[in-house]
Amino acid sequence: MFKLVTQDCAARRGELELPHGTVQTPVFMPCGTYGTVKGMTPVDIAEVGTQMLLGNTFHLMLRPGDERIRRFGGLHRFMGWDGPILTDSGGFQVFSLGELRKLDEQGVVFHSPVNGDRVTLTPESSIGVQRNLGSDVVMVLDECTAHPATHDQAADSMRLSARWAARCRAAFDTPAAEPVNPGAKLFGIVQGGMYDDLRQDSLARLLEIGFDGYAIGGLSVGESKAEMQAVMAGLLPDMPVDQPRYLMGVGTPQDLVFGVGLGVDMFDCVMPTRNGRNGYAFTSTGIVKVRNARHRDADEPLDAQCDCYTCENFSRGYLHHLDKCGEMLGAMLVTRHNLHYYHSLMARLRASIETGTFRTLVESLHNDWNLHESV
Amino acid sequence: MFKLVTQDCAARRGELELPHGTVQTPVFMPCGTYGTVKGMTPVDIAEVGTQMLLGNTFHLMLRPGDERIRRFGGLHRFMGWDGPILTDSGGFQVFSLGELRKLDEQGVVFHSPVNGDRVTLTPESSIGVQRNLGSDVVMVLDECTAHPATHDQAADSMRLSARWAARCRAAFDTPAAEPVNPGAKLFGIVQGGMYDDLRQDSLARLLEIGFDGYAIGGLSVGESKAEMQAVMAGLLPDMPVDQPRYLMGVGTPQDLVFGVGLGVDMFDCVMPTRNGRNGYAFTSTGIVKVRNARHRDADEPLDAQCDCYTCENFSRGYLHHLDKCGEMLGAMLVTRHNLHYYHSLMARLRASIETGTFRTLVESLHNDWNLHESV
Repeated sequence: MFKLVTQDCAARRGELELPHGTVQTPVFMPCGTYGTVKGMTPVDIAEVGTQMLLGNTFHLMLRPGDERIRRFGGLHRFMGWDGPILTDSGGFQVFSLGELRKLDEQGVVFHSPVNGDRVTLTPESSIGVQRNLGSDVVMVLDECTAHPATHDQAADSMRLSARWAARCRAAFDTPAAEPVNPGAKLFGIVQGGMYDDLRQDSLARLLEIGFDGYAIGGLSVGESKAEMQAVMAGLLPDMPVDQPRYLMGVGTPQDLVFGVGLGVDMFDCVMPTRNGRNGYAFTSTGIVKVRNARHRDADEPLDAQCDCYTCENFSRGYLHHLDKCGEMLGAMLVTRHNLHYYHSLMARLRASIETGTFRTLVESLHNDWNLHESV
Repeated sequence: MFKLVTQDCAARRGELELPHGTVQTPVFMPCGTYGTVKGMTPVDIAEVGTQMLLGNTFHLMLRPGDERIRRFGGLHRFMGWDGPILTDSGGFQVFSLGELRKLDEQGVVFHSPVNGDRVTLTPESSIGVQRNLGSDVVMVLDECTAHPATHDQAADSMRLSARWAARCRAAFDTPAAEPVNPGAKLFGIVQGGMYDDLRQDSLARLLEIGFDGYAIGGLSVGESKAEMQAVMAGLLPDMPVDQPRYLMGVGTPQDLVFGVGLGVDMFDCVMPTRNGRNGYAFTSTGIVKVRNARHRDADEPLDAQCDCYTCENFSRGYLHHLDKCGEMLGAMLVTRHNLHYYHSLMARLRASIETGTFRTLVESLHNDWNLHESV
């Protein structure tokens, strides 16, 4: 399923074989929350270089409902995306509800933010939902440990996640009558807060259960960049070499480069899409805030070095105008550029690992980033 | 500039030569209000079969401003659309402001709905703005006669529009220093409310001034369908044969077929785009309201006979879901379908005129429409 093609120091160049296609890693997965990457058609999504998407179990189980998506033949067919899809477990979004949810050993109960209905999510039901969606990579239900947390709190939370992971494994291994996506894979998620020993303990418990891949969860939850990097640096060297490693919900282009350098294979983040809708563009010369009045008369593209549809056809001045008028096309065009930027960065990282020039590329990227300021 | 290729009874098949290309008529022009057809990239706009766009002078002079667009090289370059563009005069939108505007012989003064600034629009300034935009077809500033209006009110209004039309002609004929779009054409607009004699009088005054084309204004302002059709039927036979005829702001597919039958060459309307954003689709089996709960589980396309991107890739159930979630992609996909539907209808009408089967096509369209109901 996962083939490690080559390595450059700790950075890994791999191939992830999934029912809907083979993914070249390291890879960035855009978020297709409600069965759509906001403002992008599937043709656009592929055109910017997307290999694999993330779908949100929490959102889709509430609207339009996973049973309904199953009747449509699964999420791929429903949304018209034929490439691989990874679904999260729904856990992260449920925990984001804060006081609105109630957790015990069995699972978590919450009130639907859509219609107020009482909804239960358990390890077993999360797997059931993700199988109805027909995702290629199914994630275990975990508790996203609060931050900050004491060692005891983080340990209790991690142990609960480990017990849930075992139940997810059992549920996933129970044969389904008419599987939407036979050949789907199941990933475990390492928790343990900011504590190295707990992260190691979590990893050991997951390895004992055995998964097709291992994710790092519970980061980008309010910790400092140094804390995040310390957790990654402590954990990644001990993760299995022959299986894919997925850093969940992270992050900036700088975070992606850092992660790849430590051996991460998969990333997802709302940043390129959400920021794109707000007129916040990632470019080779730093952040461009389209809304900034300085771009009103600018006849240059977002990024002169970019060959995406947006940069080849439109000026910053036009994008500024669309943003001012609240025109959909503004959100569409900056989203498109940002995803192209993320995917191009990943393609450059992959190429550099192949040629053994990863460190050189990272240095040159950092030199560039240090020169830049937001405009 | 206008070549009448062939006629089938009163229906006309023509070619309109403009600086940015030759347009096959009869033609429908989508509305690109703020320099964007909402939710469509220029590639999408062309892909659905658009030959020519309409831009709104009123909107663009306020945001981002016509001087600014001129500095960007004109509206074509600013918005990345290389085909012909017609701009209205701004008059219709100003008159829609109601009490917020003040009109006299000189022109009209209003407060900008964007920032409250006092703005003046005169025949001369409207031409100036449209020349800054660089449109291929410039429209005269007219007063859109209120409805209902007495004969006296409609006559006064029509005569004012005629005097303004003469001033527009003079302004347009004054050579510009560095024209954005040399070779642009100027169209007059027939007014006169619902009164045949005034419509004839208006047309005579415009013919005496002389224009490159003649539009019918002041319809779709609250009159009945019968009143609208009576005005068209009374006026069109007397309009010049060798010049293009443009019915402004109309309408439904049925209205387009009726207009073509009387010899109209050009149409614009917000209906396919605005209705599309609201999940209201024009199809070969009638109106489909995407929001309707009956479509929630529907695994069929909007229109089984349609070969647009939306119908070839997505179910009504998916579009219903996108609409429920307020997802941009829903508005994008239904807009795309609706424009494809309008342009395909025009293409069928053009083909039928060429083969002398216009009446047969109209009968079969009406038979279909009579069978259908909204779902």
